[in-house]
Amino acid sequence: MTQTDTILRASHTAFQQYKKVTGTDKAIFLDALAAEIEALGQPLIAKAMEETNLPEARLVGERGRTCNQLRQFAALVKEGSWVEARIDTATPDRAPLPKPDLRKMMVPLGPVVVFGASNFPFAYSTAGVDTASALAAGCSVVLKAHPAHPQTSEMVASAIAKAIAKTKIPNDVFLHVQDSSFETGKALVQHPLTKAVGFTGSFSGGKALYDYATQRSEPIPVFAEMGSINPVFIFPGALKVRSEKIAETYAASITQGVGQFCTNPGLLLGLENAELEVFKKQLSEKMKLIAPGTMLHPGIANNYSKNRAKALEQTGVQLLAESNERPKENQATSTLATVRATDFAANHLLVEEVFGPYSLLVTANTIEELKTAAAKIPGQLTATIIGEDEDLVTYVDFIDLIKEKAGRVIINGVPTGVEVCPSMHHGGPFPATTDSRFTSVGTDAIKRFVRPVSFQNFPQHLLPAELKDENPLGIWRLVNNEFIKLAGASLQ
Amino acid sequence: MTQTDTILRASHTAFQQYKKVTGTDKAIFLDALAAEIEALGQPLIAKAMEETNLPEARLVGERGRTCNQLRQFAALVKEGSWVEARIDTATPDRAPLPKPDLRKMMVPLGPVVVFGASNFPFAYSTAGVDTASALAAGCSVVLKAHPAHPQTSEMVASAIAKAIAKTKIPNDVFLHVQDSSFETGKALVQHPLTKAVGFTGSFSGGKALYDYATQRSEPIPVFAEMGSINPVFIFPGALKVRSEKIAETYAASITQGVGQFCTNPGLLLGLENAELEVFKKQLSEKMKLIAPGTMLHPGIANNYSKNRAKALEQTGVQLLAESNERPKENQATSTLATVRATDFAANHLLVEEVFGPYSLLVTANTIEELKTAAAKIPGQLTATIIGEDEDLVTYVDFIDLIKEKAGRVIINGVPTGVEVCPSMHHGGPFPATTDSRFTSVGTDAIKRFVRPVSFQNFPQHLLPAELKDENPLGIWRLVNNEFIKLAGASLQ
Repeated sequence: MTQTDTILRASHTAFQQYKKVTGTDKAIFLDALAAEIEALGQPLIAKAMEETNLPEARLVGERGRTCNQLRQFAALVKEGSWVEARIDTATPDRAPLPKPDLRKMMVPLGPVVVFGASNFPFAYSTAGVDTASALAAGCSVVLKAHPAHPQTSEMVASAIAKAIAKTKIPNDVFLHVQDSSFETGKALVQHPLTKAVGFTGSFSGGKALYDYATQRSEPIPVFAEMGSINPVFIFPGALKVRSEKIAETYAASITQGVGQFCTNPGLLLGLENAELEVFKKQLSEKMKLIAPGTMLHPGIANNYSKNRAKALEQTGVQLLAESNERPKENQATSTLATVRATDFAANHLLVEEVFGPYSLLVTANTIEELKTAAAKIPGQLTATIIGEDEDLVTYVDFIDLIKEKAGRVIINGVPTGVEVCPSMHHGGPFPATTDSRFTSVGTDAIKRFVRPVSFQNFPQHLLPAELKDENPLGIWRLVNNEFIKLAGASLQ
Repeated sequence: MTQTDTILRASHTAFQQYKKVTGTDKAIFLDALAAEIEALGQPLIAKAMEETNLPEARLVGERGRTCNQLRQFAALVKEGSWVEARIDTATPDRAPLPKPDLRKMMVPLGPVVVFGASNFPFAYSTAGVDTASALAAGCSVVLKAHPAHPQTSEMVASAIAKAIAKTKIPNDVFLHVQDSSFETGKALVQHPLTKAVGFTGSFSGGKALYDYATQRSEPIPVFAEMGSINPVFIFPGALKVRSEKIAETYAASITQGVGQFCTNPGLLLGLENAELEVFKKQLSEKMKLIAPGTMLHPGIANNYSKNRAKALEQTGVQLLAESNERPKENQATSTLATVRATDFAANHLLVEEVFGPYSLLVTANTIEELKTAAAKIPGQLTATIIGEDEDLVTYVDFIDLIKEKAGRVIINGVPTGVEVCPSMHHGGPFPATTDSRFTSVGTDAIKRFVRPVSFQNFPQHLLPAELKDENPLGIWRLVNNEFIKLAGASLQ
């Protein structure tokens, strides 16, 4: 028996118990987990700083978001309506055939394998959104720690173990795997007891997992979020009145966290005119003033160097600005490049992400050129439009065009900063993710790890609480096609 | 330019307009489509009888279900709440970062390729549930007609064309492809403009489409419903009091429509004792009296012969009964076989579907044997328990066990007969379908063909009606985490 087999069997056994735990008890567990992470205090932040090179304020903020996320899922499963309960009562005297009593709700898929992400040691790692949403759904979790922050991951895993011990949760509901080998990740995804996969990271990593999962004898869903270049269309009216301000906002957004966000704006697009020339200079000046930053780990810093160099040597690409200060070891220099829209449209390499503080300004002579360039952009997590009211009228077609490509469309804002709330869609058409129908941020992330089951002709005492006539949980349900939230003894 | 390319380009162009059509106008279209199918009258039924060998009453019923389905989707999109609107209003003064205004709703994926099914010339074919749900979602549809009923498909396609002409719908929203070649189906799934696939049919067919779709450079979702053996657990208490009745009900269910339903009960399981011996004889006697029926087409009849023979020659499998009357050409003889649970558990070929009026009774000496046998059953559309109150207490673990395997669990009923309603889940873990998270029957089938988009910081006039403050459509929305249906000028 391999180690993977032992792990998945233990996870599956724990799942058999955990799937029966009530929403209230899952909420107590998730709330306890948030409290245990907070109880780790400053040593957790210090360890994460040491392992990721991320600054303290960022890590404190990320820990807050992670605990907030856990508490949002706790509130969601405590309230209970997320199971999408539907009830259609029987019509025994219907002709020619009687209508049976049918009720439906979501149930958890089974053990979920989650891969920690290097760029978010808390929010997308050990007790991050994949783990939180899978546990909220009622799935057990096998977490493969990211090798770039093993001790941070170990500390968070110890908090999970404490929360498990303090509440009524089966021990093996969360299993922590510290093993940096590629083969282990592959074996976890291929194990027959694994029922779904969560991943945030590179395209090559996510796509490999997707291929393993879909080529199993029983294919399973993979939710891989694989990054994005997050195009930003900057229209002339806006540049006329607030060019300097846009340059300032975007210099900050491009370089925030050394550009290590999947929502980093790696592509700016505009129409060539005098205002765009001014903007180009303004943004260049600001980028030069932003000092190089230390990246998460040497591998990422190396890749940034390589990918940046490769991008800069493409036909027509010109370097506009880089940090005045020279980068030290493992640091990334802030970079702005530019290219004509026709060159951009002719070169598919230019839509590849340069993960780091890099952005490419695409300049178009005409609206048609801009549209052709936009058409070459593949699926994205986000797309942004910067425009005055007049622009939003003149270029309204672009809103429609980019809605086809992106999971989130922003007007007059920046794509960085992913609000954790029900309205957030953090996902998008391939290659941004492997399944555009699901989000990895916000409470709807729970939907990735559940499936519906119909209960036909069940006696009341065998129905789950969510589907009993008297609605003991007081949840919203679709009853005979009416959406209601009535607690009481009868449905009629 | 290939024919496939011409078709998908036309479908994509139509989609660009159709995605903007309001729910009210889509409802008018779908209602008109139902009326046009009804207006085809008896000639449609006659043509379908000729092409499928199905009896008139069944086809009239199926047409009714198909039109009912279209009208249910019309009502769904007219009402509008299906888009799962979520609104989180801004908190500009939140520290350290302001909270942006975020709103989310479902939007259509794009052109959907639908494959007509041979066993349901109306309900799962040309204007069947895949087409209806995709059109309701706002997707355009390319329909590959099933070669077994080309003229029936042509007639239904003409009804769709009439409904398109009478309402405000772009012409190419529905395109009908008559081409029996395997290569055409493959090319349609592989075309870059295709965004999703709907299929009902054999495992080999569905799995091939899944593989093409997941191996594209941009993978797309495939919803393939690939059949099922639909296990039925018959417990001792029930046999004690109503053995004869159960035999009668199941002889009818196994042979209904010459067994050509994906919910056909192809596997019965029970505990060996005197009552089971009696039941075996009762069911055998009833099966013998059911005459052979003509199958949908010679290919299916041939496969039935072959697969039945192969199943009957497996170790330990015994023929218990077949139709007294000898089958004529293209007819299938009603068949009941039996096997010991230990032989069943040892032979994975015995869980393969024998599409037709065939069922295998698995007999177990002990509950443990029965559990071991049950554990060998792969994902199913349905699973059924026949039991008295005492059985449901004694064997309650089986309910839990089969809920893991099936999309619909039935107590004291038959799996055949799929009610079209919101509570129906017609789907199930692989290999029943390629994605257990979605249904192909009932209004939730629309969810297969949509994805969420978030709108951040949008001015009111650019928001879709579903997300505007004043809720002009009067739909249910989750507003700042409260579920409400208020029409009015303000959200606060």
